[in-house]
Amino acid sequence: VSSATKTFFGSRWVAAPEHVRDLGAVAGLPAGFRASGVACGIKPSGRSDLGLLRCDAEQPISAARFTTSSAAAAPVLLTRERCDLSALRAAAVNSGCANAATGERGLRDASHMQEAAAQALALGPHEVALASTGSISHYLPMERILDGIARAGADLRADGDSEFQRAIETTDSFEKRASLEVVLHGGVVRLSAQCKGAGMISPRFATMLCFVQTDAALAAGSVDALLDRALARSFDRISVDGQLSTNDTVLLIASGASGIDVAAASDDEQRFAAALDALLRQLAVLVAADGEGAGRIARVRVRGGDPAEAELAARAIANSPLVKAALHGGDPNWGRILQAVGGALPGSAPLPLEIAIEGMTVCASGAATEYDEEALKRSVQGPEIDYEVTLPGEGAEAEVLFSDLSHEYVTLNAEYTT
Amino acid sequence: VSSATKTFFGSRWVAAPEHVRDLGAVAGLPAGFRASGVACGIKPSGRSDLGLLRCDAEQPISAARFTTSSAAAAPVLLTRERCDLSALRAAAVNSGCANAATGERGLRDASHMQEAAAQALALGPHEVALASTGSISHYLPMERILDGIARAGADLRADGDSEFQRAIETTDSFEKRASLEVVLHGGVVRLSAQCKGAGMISPRFATMLCFVQTDAALAAGSVDALLDRALARSFDRISVDGQLSTNDTVLLIASGASGIDVAAASDDEQRFAAALDALLRQLAVLVAADGEGAGRIARVRVRGGDPAEAELAARAIANSPLVKAALHGGDPNWGRILQAVGGALPGSAPLPLEIAIEGMTVCASGAATEYDEEALKRSVQGPEIDYEVTLPGEGAEAEVLFSDLSHEYVTLNAEYTT
Repeated sequence: VSSATKTFFGSRWVAAPEHVRDLGAVAGLPAGFRASGVACGIKPSGRSDLGLLRCDAEQPISAARFTTSSAAAAPVLLTRERCDLSALRAAAVNSGCANAATGERGLRDASHMQEAAAQALALGPHEVALASTGSISHYLPMERILDGIARAGADLRADGDSEFQRAIETTDSFEKRASLEVVLHGGVVRLSAQCKGAGMISPRFATMLCFVQTDAALAAGSVDALLDRALARSFDRISVDGQLSTNDTVLLIASGASGIDVAAASDDEQRFAAALDALLRQLAVLVAADGEGAGRIARVRVRGGDPAEAELAARAIANSPLVKAALHGGDPNWGRILQAVGGALPGSAPLPLEIAIEGMTVCASGAATEYDEEALKRSVQGPEIDYEVTLPGEGAEAEVLFSDLSHEYVTLNAEYTT
Repeated sequence: VSSATKTFFGSRWVAAPEHVRDLGAVAGLPAGFRASGVACGIKPSGRSDLGLLRCDAEQPISAARFTTSSAAAAPVLLTRERCDLSALRAAAVNSGCANAATGERGLRDASHMQEAAAQALALGPHEVALASTGSISHYLPMERILDGIARAGADLRADGDSEFQRAIETTDSFEKRASLEVVLHGGVVRLSAQCKGAGMISPRFATMLCFVQTDAALAAGSVDALLDRALARSFDRISVDGQLSTNDTVLLIASGASGIDVAAASDDEQRFAAALDALLRQLAVLVAADGEGAGRIARVRVRGGDPAEAELAARAIANSPLVKAALHGGDPNWGRILQAVGGALPGSAPLPLEIAIEGMTVCASGAATEYDEEALKRSVQGPEIDYEVTLPGEGAEAEVLFSDLSHEYVTLNAEYTT
């Protein structure tokens, strides 16, 4: 268990609670869930591209979050409009085509896909969330989708999470999946997730998707709030290239099949929340670390100022191609951090910034300090680099995790669409 | 004259007025100006790095604009604070060191540099604008600076603009300089400029600087307004990497030495304004085209919506690494334009965007249209690509010119600082 724990909770920016155990990759889904994945020919490569997830409990509790893009894809629009997001029982997901920028025909295709999945899963269409990821502006190949749904529907298994995971991946270079055990006072519950994403990244092979399952019997009002809180510290805090996808979706379903009740505002709910936080935060780190072409990731924490300023400054640093290129090159070029903050917070009065890299103060009151250049350079050669920025004033804090900017990113994103 | 005109006014996005003639690179400065440039050892390469510009008229009229960064460099802070920006008579400029993030010592160094330049030019310190460009966080090497000022002060020449140009350049891969003749009803005046910049770009070798001279006798109230108007259509409209420098400076000085009066609100003022617009716009295009590693540039025009939305959308497209990588690859991947706009303008209602590339409509009402994919791909292989985006609603328009994202950009910006 100890080495498996290290495998999933690998980032120094994620504190895995002691009451959470990593069960490793072969544990299967929590009680009350089945999943499957098949290749139905959406991806030219022939790789797996259609997945189904079903909760077999009669009255699961769910919560979902979607991209805030005003160019949201058809599956997002349809799921938001047609489903009761607190009572979802299944998800039908395809990769290889985002069904985005597809207009009325895209909505009809999504509706058709949802109805077919509902039929295959013996559920109502309003109980089935849809998600798609892949190329923008292409229509779903409906014959293949329907064929895939029929086959995936016949193949649902309690240990189908790895097949489901493969079906939702696109440019991911490693698996982002976890099966955890959460020790509550009331008993042991399971928590699992399947996630894909190499950042918000390419609209060609776009999008971050994450499906989370637990067999805990969570309180009806809790699931939504727990997801909100965990997202605020995980997927809301990462950037590969500052590009919001048309298809981002996160879905949490609690089956209650363990029979272990987690009452609202109880100590066990806190324990469950801590587990969910750690799970999503580690997945978010993995998405940033798998940013297209990424070789190194960083965390920037901005303290001080007001919340809007701290957020602006942190985002400006995380999305600066100069900061990201320096991160890539193992170059502790903090002038670029200062420049990014200065540009994000315009003003004629000089900003008395403090900047620290890996705990070494390099800039105070907006001016260079004395520091050991060689030690500083050595400190930025690892896989995870810490930047800290202090603005004048107190109270606010904003954190963003981000990947570097590499040649590989340019190569992956400069190729022709077709 | 015709072929020289083509040489400077090379962009299809700049309409050179018929009453403006390009005099080519060897014409020298307008009447009443002298300049020089020397190598004084600030740059390790030994290349030219200190320039002086002097207006010999007793009462020239000037206007200046600076970076809006709250991390502005010492020369910017000092010039803004100490000088009467409408009565500047000279500029002292160094490359190789930005004198940014240098605190109190940086301000003392800048003050010392300004006083030395004033002495060498027989002017008051408040009449000498300062500008620096180069590495952030390093102190000016004052002995070399003072030596360079003394030598440059002894070398001022009416045809010193090319030496001055070389002294202000950093990573520029080609010269951005012009000498124009402007035919007014009242006679022929001269207009010239020396400009450096490879975008806002690297804080290591940062910054856009532009010095503009004319011998027209402009009205006292006009110079500031003319510069404002021209900047709004030129340097305010370009982006290489969305990174605002700590040192950006634009300075316009009118010597009046031609004796040709240009009255406020006159037809001749309009003609002069048109020349200044074309000059700065072409220089801005050249700065974008010389963006570090740039191989191709684009113009995006967003129409419709309200002004803030149009501006946000245009900036989001121009600064999207996905759009820029596609531009680099000659890939007409308009899904990335849709994604960038959708991310910049959050909202749950689908945005009925229209997108055209090189005049071909590829997206209408937010959905793909029928188009000739081969023709579209051919259309994006040239050096200047046009994107047009239409938001719902009328009235607003925002334009941004921007460079692509290349391997060379990553290489240039991923190397170690020292």
